[in-house]
Amino acid sequence: MPKISDKGNQMPPSPIRKLVPYAEAAKKRGVTIFHLNIGQPDIHTPEVMLNAIRNVDLKVVEYSHSAGIESYRKKLAGYYQRNRIMVDWQDIIITTGGSEAIEIGMMACLNPGDEIIVPEPYYANYNGFSTQANVQVKPIPSSIETGFALPPISEFEKAITPKTKAILICNPSNPTGYLYTREELETLKQIVLKHDLFLFADEVYREFCYDGREYVSVMHLSDLDQHVVLMDSISKRYSACGARIGALVSKNKDVMAAALKFAQARLSPPTFGQIAAEAAIDTPQAYFDEVIQEYAARRDYVVEALNKIEGVFCPKPSGAFYCMAQLPVDDADRFCQWLLESFEYRQQTVMLAPASGFYSEPERGKQQVRIAYVLKLESLKNAMECLEEALKVYPGKTSSASIRQSPLTA
Amino acid sequence: MPKISDKGNQMPPSPIRKLVPYAEAAKKRGVTIFHLNIGQPDIHTPEVMLNAIRNVDLKVVEYSHSAGIESYRKKLAGYYQRNRIMVDWQDIIITTGGSEAIEIGMMACLNPGDEIIVPEPYYANYNGFSTQANVQVKPIPSSIETGFALPPISEFEKAITPKTKAILICNPSNPTGYLYTREELETLKQIVLKHDLFLFADEVYREFCYDGREYVSVMHLSDLDQHVVLMDSISKRYSACGARIGALVSKNKDVMAAALKFAQARLSPPTFGQIAAEAAIDTPQAYFDEVIQEYAARRDYVVEALNKIEGVFCPKPSGAFYCMAQLPVDDADRFCQWLLESFEYRQQTVMLAPASGFYSEPERGKQQVRIAYVLKLESLKNAMECLEEALKVYPGKTSSASIRQSPLTA
Repeated sequence: MPKISDKGNQMPPSPIRKLVPYAEAAKKRGVTIFHLNIGQPDIHTPEVMLNAIRNVDLKVVEYSHSAGIESYRKKLAGYYQRNRIMVDWQDIIITTGGSEAIEIGMMACLNPGDEIIVPEPYYANYNGFSTQANVQVKPIPSSIETGFALPPISEFEKAITPKTKAILICNPSNPTGYLYTREELETLKQIVLKHDLFLFADEVYREFCYDGREYVSVMHLSDLDQHVVLMDSISKRYSACGARIGALVSKNKDVMAAALKFAQARLSPPTFGQIAAEAAIDTPQAYFDEVIQEYAARRDYVVEALNKIEGVFCPKPSGAFYCMAQLPVDDADRFCQWLLESFEYRQQTVMLAPASGFYSEPERGKQQVRIAYVLKLESLKNAMECLEEALKVYPGKTSSASIRQSPLTA
Repeated sequence: MPKISDKGNQMPPSPIRKLVPYAEAAKKRGVTIFHLNIGQPDIHTPEVMLNAIRNVDLKVVEYSHSAGIESYRKKLAGYYQRNRIMVDWQDIIITTGGSEAIEIGMMACLNPGDEIIVPEPYYANYNGFSTQANVQVKPIPSSIETGFALPPISEFEKAITPKTKAILICNPSNPTGYLYTREELETLKQIVLKHDLFLFADEVYREFCYDGREYVSVMHLSDLDQHVVLMDSISKRYSACGARIGALVSKNKDVMAAALKFAQARLSPPTFGQIAAEAAIDTPQAYFDEVIQEYAARRDYVVEALNKIEGVFCPKPSGAFYCMAQLPVDDADRFCQWLLESFEYRQQTVMLAPASGFYSEPERGKQQVRIAYVLKLESLKNAMECLEEALKVYPGKTSSASIRQSPLTA
């Protein structure tokens, strides 16, 4: 029997999805599960998108151009320009979700063995995409005590080697919800220019900034045209994760020419999704105003509820729809599995994403979980109640004191 | 300015799509182009699929399971079973087109530096996917004189090295239209078992077999469960290329477990496409009967018309909707570009895929083109007329005698 590849063995399972079989078993036992493990919002997809799909009048569902439907790329360029991201439609390649934008961006820019610096904790699938590309992630630890602010520039300087080729940030951040300030991004810019690196920016949560905080794109910075590769997606913006439409955006012509070859190999992004995405650009501002207000209220509730639970600590994020919480547990992976396998409260339980998968060394996230506040307030209240009750009876509970002193959070 | 990756440089441009800018320029000059360069049929997508899309009643366009929507996987297993491919729904991972099935299959099974044997000429994007996976394609030349039959087993034995890990076939074949006989597949089986290899089979043209010829899947062969990885797609079956729905199918549990991790990293296949694909399984047999009849008529016409042109040779294929033709030209790449840039006949021209990209060494396909007979007969007639006229005036024309004697076809 032939053996699978090393990469197939090394590929990390998704921390967001690896517990799915336990959740399925719990559901079969009649337990209601609050899914806070995954950024799958319950927010309705804009009607304008769904109507575009319902009105599809194609006779043949054809391939599109490998870079995407031209009319969509042009409208999308307008969307970026309204966000002061001054790109032309030819600086855009439509991808199959943000995932493919990251995959293609890595393949186009990085050689096997190259190193990519990523502030940690980071979106778990960066580990997967790096494994696929045979690229080495070099984490720069950010800390829960500072709310996961950008680590000092000295930490970046220490991490840079001759193999360093890029820095990757997610802003606003999944999983931490941290929103970089202009000053932090200017700091990054100096490092990028000094060491002639690519700056990959995953900005799929652009719309989700709270408390009147300003969103700054890496594309708002000057002098970085040849360095910046933007990875984007409509999944979160329009609560349309299943459409699988994203974009790779760069003004670096070499990057775009290489990216197009990868895009040609896979033929085209999904046609139905592009039709919906093009229509989505006409989503009225009122939709976003309502959604942002809703998420801010959810965040306020969840963060307050978490910090009220004994031994739990959760910094208040300014963006995206995630927060990271430190829990008084021996092992968050074990705890999250236990929540699904062995716990229920009023026939309900909660599914969380253990943070180990969001770190390059799982140990660092051993007592943390990522919580996606993507459900309506009533569900979040039930979910937080479940969590509080669970922490009272979980056999692997640790004292809150030991957590506060944990070197993991130092 | 940071440099792009070696892979970004090495990645081959698509021979099917690289001439698109010339086609766009010709269209702007008012020239009608018959697109025989790409397997994008004009056949209507089944109504049952389009109706499913028009009736979408989702409130939220959610991610699906990473392996695809369960109800679709179950119905798809039924489709395979009706084709005597005895797989369970859990042997199936839904992918974003056949392209992603090949990408994931390669990543799950092959290490960088591994060799994969592919009868040549082969689907051009195998070069791209191999470059992505850092895998080496080892071609076994098949010849236009034999209609591209499977090369003798001795050729495979010669090509096998300690690094050989898989054989990849496309059956019925893109680009040659060749349909492997059961005997040929049994021969492959012996090689696969003897050398403990994976057998990758791209069978996306399963439905397109002519002249009453029997379609044999590698999954019809016994004793190969641990070796066979099927790469499939609905693109051609239902003329739904833009839906971007394919499947990776294998009974090898290790392969499927690894493949699922790659599938999880990219989250999920497109939801709209899956909805359409699930509905497609109810497409009535009458649809296929009509389509096959139509393609057979197109093939008969094109092959006959080609062979009537002086200096042109085209074997008659038994499957898929492509044929490979030998042309009396100095360089098919140059000729195909010239057709778009410098030629028109009654304000019309034809776009073909130069065969160089379907060979591991472009030189071998220098005088061949792939023709996709995916347009209605009237368009095909006009296209063949254009080709005949073009060959009369093309400055790089060679004599037919020199072609027949060409070592390239020996």
